[in-house]
Amino acid sequence: MSKKYVVLTGGVGGAKLVLGLAQVAPPEDITVIVNTGDDFTHLGLYVSPDMDTLLYTLSAKANRTLGWGREDETWGFIEALRSLGGEDWFLLGDRDLALHILRTAALARGDTLSAVTRAFAKAWNVDVTMLPMSDDRVSTEVDTVEGVLPFQRYFVERRCAPVARSIAFEGATAARAAPGVIEAIQAPETHTILIAPSNPYLSVDPILAVPGIRTALAAARAPVVAISPIIAGKAVKGPTSKLMQELGVEATSTAIAMHYAGLLDGMIIDEQDIGSPPPLPYAATDTLMTDLDDRTRVAAAALALADRLAPSTNR
Amino acid sequence: MSKKYVVLTGGVGGAKLVLGLAQVAPPEDITVIVNTGDDFTHLGLYVSPDMDTLLYTLSAKANRTLGWGREDETWGFIEALRSLGGEDWFLLGDRDLALHILRTAALARGDTLSAVTRAFAKAWNVDVTMLPMSDDRVSTEVDTVEGVLPFQRYFVERRCAPVARSIAFEGATAARAAPGVIEAIQAPETHTILIAPSNPYLSVDPILAVPGIRTALAAARAPVVAISPIIAGKAVKGPTSKLMQELGVEATSTAIAMHYAGLLDGMIIDEQDIGSPPPLPYAATDTLMTDLDDRTRVAAAALALADRLAPSTNR
Repeated sequence: MSKKYVVLTGGVGGAKLVLGLAQVAPPEDITVIVNTGDDFTHLGLYVSPDMDTLLYTLSAKANRTLGWGREDETWGFIEALRSLGGEDWFLLGDRDLALHILRTAALARGDTLSAVTRAFAKAWNVDVTMLPMSDDRVSTEVDTVEGVLPFQRYFVERRCAPVARSIAFEGATAARAAPGVIEAIQAPETHTILIAPSNPYLSVDPILAVPGIRTALAAARAPVVAISPIIAGKAVKGPTSKLMQELGVEATSTAIAMHYAGLLDGMIIDEQDIGSPPPLPYAATDTLMTDLDDRTRVAAAALALADRLAPSTNR
Repeated sequence: MSKKYVVLTGGVGGAKLVLGLAQVAPPEDITVIVNTGDDFTHLGLYVSPDMDTLLYTLSAKANRTLGWGREDETWGFIEALRSLGGEDWFLLGDRDLALHILRTAALARGDTLSAVTRAFAKAWNVDVTMLPMSDDRVSTEVDTVEGVLPFQRYFVERRCAPVARSIAFEGATAARAAPGVIEAIQAPETHTILIAPSNPYLSVDPILAVPGIRTALAAARAPVVAISPIIAGKAVKGPTSKLMQELGVEATSTAIAMHYAGLLDGMIIDEQDIGSPPPLPYAATDTLMTDLDDRTRVAAAALALADRLAPSTNR
């Protein structure tokens, strides 16, 4: 029985991990469960930022200069939009628009987000199975001192400036996990379940808020290993640190472990944080994923830890 | 009382005439009534080709090389769309998309096509008043030997290849003229009403099919002058000639005059067709509108003819 791998992920950081994982495991044996809490309708177009980041990263189209969006991008649309007085706070690249326009048209026809994602991945020869956490709409909202902000208004337009008080996932209680999500977590051939070093509060919690996913993870036969987004007592990405502070959580791997309490079997922490280890089995490595070697190393460390946690040969 | 001018128009040819007219009359005294029978929803976006051609032409953004679309255009979107297997028979430029996306979003919010058009014209400092023939949906359909084709499928995808048998304007009987259309035709200060040298069957007939417009034109106090699209016994644009042949109509100014029977007070014909004059008052000039001087000359000839037809000083 071939080993399968599952990754719960948000956008950029998670995509790096999945790309690394695809170097040490066959891409067709990897299933990623992607946060769609960031999804929103902008100018009438359904935009799915984390899904798109994954798609671009796994099809080698990610824009390395910007750190978001796609390569070889041009900006004629947004320039013309600006000249017409359209909202330009969320940058949409010309090539990027193809995903949004096709997805919006397909959803309007009644296709599911799962089906659209499958078609995109196929067109771009992405062998990793990409699943949205849900085909139902779940919207991350940040309650700030300035009021409740939809995720992209908070994250992109306001650049996380308003102090956050709490985070909610509108629609989550009524949402159903997308086809294949629970099955991938439960499958007997699943060897390891990784939680990517994405923002736990904004990128992973929406996935865990979809009924059935948390329970399935807690009951999973495969070890669940989180990669800590903390390096040297700070989150790799500024907003995560700021948000943790505002939510009254210390920026430590222990706090991350506590956040995922009941779900984790192990954790990958950065070697700089080895002095304050989390209260569960862990392994340490350099977790900063700058290049493909880094990503591969982190993924390999996670798989090795999973092997150690569940070394039985039939996994 | 300042003199006002009204032009019924389709896309490219009509836009050239309006641009010429704006050289000999104040743009703010010109109202254009634009064919929207070509409008269609493509990839979920509401595209209004004749309206966009007018907008681009009057805001000095028209693409002179292509003869359609806008200047400085890039094609990243359509390339990416193609790579995803999307329909690429109708080319949408990156900058061009701004009009379609904003318009679609505005219509979805409940704005009228008139209101959207007004906002675009204002943003781009177009002083000519642009009115869609109707805010209701009217769709030109060509019945061909291969079956009924929606206009853009016939015109763009099939390049007018299928032999046409008849043309219908789906939705026209229930459509209402857009606010200002009938009023502009009837206004006492209207000095001249021009019918642009657009395709009579595909571009002007849809306008005339909207209830009330034909009657208002027939009853108009201002002289109605058509500019013939025929030069030397051929239509300037290939498809018009081909279509006239298929519909069993001779490509002559007389045939055009007959087509508009009951509406016209005069006609501008090309000087090459002076040997076969139409059966109504006319003036001849070189009607091929290559550059701005040509356009201005044709517009001036039409106004001079209108003056001759209705020389009263209070017009």
